[in-house]
Amino acid sequence: MALKVAQRGRISPFIVMDVVRAANAQAAAGSEVLHLEVGQPATKAPQPVLDAAKRALDDSLIGYSDAFGLPELRQALAGHYAALYGVELDPARIAATPGSSGGFLLAFLAAFEPGDRVALAAPGYPAYRNILQALDVEPVLLETDLEHRYQPTPDLLQGAGRLDGLIVASPSNPTGTVLDRAALRALVDYCAAEGIRLVSDEIYHGITYEERATSALELTDTAIVINSFSKYFCMTGWRLGWMVLPEDLVRPVECLAQNFFVAAPTLSQHAAVAAFDCRPELDARVAAYARNRGLLLERLPHAGFERLAPADGAFYLYADASRLTNDSPALCARILKETGVALTPGVDFDPARGHRFVRFSFAGSEGDMRAACDRLIAFAGAGG
Amino acid sequence: MALKVAQRGRISPFIVMDVVRAANAQAAAGSEVLHLEVGQPATKAPQPVLDAAKRALDDSLIGYSDAFGLPELRQALAGHYAALYGVELDPARIAATPGSSGGFLLAFLAAFEPGDRVALAAPGYPAYRNILQALDVEPVLLETDLEHRYQPTPDLLQGAGRLDGLIVASPSNPTGTVLDRAALRALVDYCAAEGIRLVSDEIYHGITYEERATSALELTDTAIVINSFSKYFCMTGWRLGWMVLPEDLVRPVECLAQNFFVAAPTLSQHAAVAAFDCRPELDARVAAYARNRGLLLERLPHAGFERLAPADGAFYLYADASRLTNDSPALCARILKETGVALTPGVDFDPARGHRFVRFSFAGSEGDMRAACDRLIAFAGAGG
Repeated sequence: MALKVAQRGRISPFIVMDVVRAANAQAAAGSEVLHLEVGQPATKAPQPVLDAAKRALDDSLIGYSDAFGLPELRQALAGHYAALYGVELDPARIAATPGSSGGFLLAFLAAFEPGDRVALAAPGYPAYRNILQALDVEPVLLETDLEHRYQPTPDLLQGAGRLDGLIVASPSNPTGTVLDRAALRALVDYCAAEGIRLVSDEIYHGITYEERATSALELTDTAIVINSFSKYFCMTGWRLGWMVLPEDLVRPVECLAQNFFVAAPTLSQHAAVAAFDCRPELDARVAAYARNRGLLLERLPHAGFERLAPADGAFYLYADASRLTNDSPALCARILKETGVALTPGVDFDPARGHRFVRFSFAGSEGDMRAACDRLIAFAGAGG
Repeated sequence: MALKVAQRGRISPFIVMDVVRAANAQAAAGSEVLHLEVGQPATKAPQPVLDAAKRALDDSLIGYSDAFGLPELRQALAGHYAALYGVELDPARIAATPGSSGGFLLAFLAAFEPGDRVALAAPGYPAYRNILQALDVEPVLLETDLEHRYQPTPDLLQGAGRLDGLIVASPSNPTGTVLDRAALRALVDYCAAEGIRLVSDEIYHGITYEERATSALELTDTAIVINSFSKYFCMTGWRLGWMVLPEDLVRPVECLAQNFFVAAPTLSQHAAVAAFDCRPELDARVAAYARNRGLLLERLPHAGFERLAPADGAFYLYADASRLTNDSPALCARILKETGVALTPGVDFDPARGHRFVRFSFAGSEGDMRAACDRLIAFAGAGG
């Protein structure tokens, strides 16, 4: 008898990962590829992090940690919130996770039933809606635009019907926009009044160009906060994130984490403890992102990319490419092939309207940004 | 308005993880605890693995890998199947995962719909049924016993009603029993005839005391095979596993992996490539487990633990403790408190009958096994 493939296995790809693969294949074939597609710092983790990993390799079994992580890591994370946000947290509410990805799975399972409706901005990080769908939760896309600074508002929520959850990302991927304190508070208050569970993705905290971003933890104890060592701390491949949980979800998430993951990678946990002492070095990297941002904001319009979202944070620009295309995947494929510049088509972030948008990641080196602009301007000048 | 905790977040704990926490707390308070609860080798990963990790720390960005892992790791895994099993595999069918845990999530989502019925042996690894439940798939427990060597049979499957899937584990956790080639073939044939997707958990392959275990890949191309570097390769905390997928599930699982995990830990992947050259050293560790096994088989009956399952593989003994208790969690708690020996109660593996069983892990040192037997025999002699 034939075997089936489950319907919920048929979720959309995370398109950027397919682009990465195509870009790597092109590079392996000898082309000089510039990676503006992937949201990954071009620099390694700070040396003290690498040194801590080496010490753990020498001195530790690297066995399973507790499901929620090493006590010293959870303590260090609590210290991080006290130092940066002035928020005192019981480390018992903090869970190390396999990347922020693992945090989303645990959060969605613990907070939402099949059939629940969870709102999130479009454009937004595609894995939110793809994971929700695979778990039989309905993603409710709030169509935001440059005028809304690509963020949800209470008005948009009100128009979305009954909701069980709201995911916010500030700074946002793919737009880099930040919810200021008042805007975040308005959403927190709306959720509290309506019984909507707030999931706050704070993975790009630390990478901001104006003021520091506000954490949902400064405003409420009932949100699920998700974060990671991947972005600000430059530890993507270490696959280590964390959650801060409301009291009522601590034990349910612990049971889920025990069963779904056993624990987060222990070597990465040992290393990450050292990351909190590296802020000056890491902040210098943010300053480099700021220079890249300035460069792209100045030059991309000359390559036909317009209405660039104001990236208050993260390392992305989300650009209107409608002067160039009504088919962003085809445009990105052509640009990769003809210029070697890898970009992510907007359809990854906004299925309905992304066909005329493109995301640029400026987490790479300044030299790569300059070269990419040169190539893209030449491409546009040659008729696009 | 009050916020809810989702029903599917209310799954059972992975009890051994709770025992580990209690044992660690007791050890931190100064007690000399012997860890016979957790399925974790007491020895580190082989030195070449540690050296490969250090080289990666020096030479590599440790960025995201492809969703299915580093090409050199997938190639090495294909070589592993050719060398050990005589099975030629396209590396495109091999996916690195965040532990075998990550593999189970991906397998269950890709192969099973909500409401599907998936059979598995009781006693068995608790995360199977807990993950299935959290994903709204119905676990159908096949009650096996010592006479069945704690493994499913076509007869048991026939009595279980309509089935969409079957999970087998050979060697099994918690019993260590192995499905020989004929027994596995009978299950493969039954599944093929009935359209049942077979998931073969081969995480304890390599740790066998008689013949090597048969892989489902030797008998069929349609099974999902799940494995890990945690057990034979002594890399638990590295959180790296792998899957071998049937062709029809390659792309669905890739899309799921991109969204749910982005990728497996890259540092662990770099290190694991070196593990395949360490078989002599790793096989020597298996010989040490065999000595531990002999010791426990001889001495545990003197402590009141009987009808020990014949552990053909893995590093567990599943013992009938009904002479001592009808409440294995209470017995394990008392033994931990009074003797410092940490054991896992059978209810983790068999909710219905585990109250009179206990699992011993003999992955620790021979000294720990001897000391644990001494303490347990004294405990029993003092009236249990």
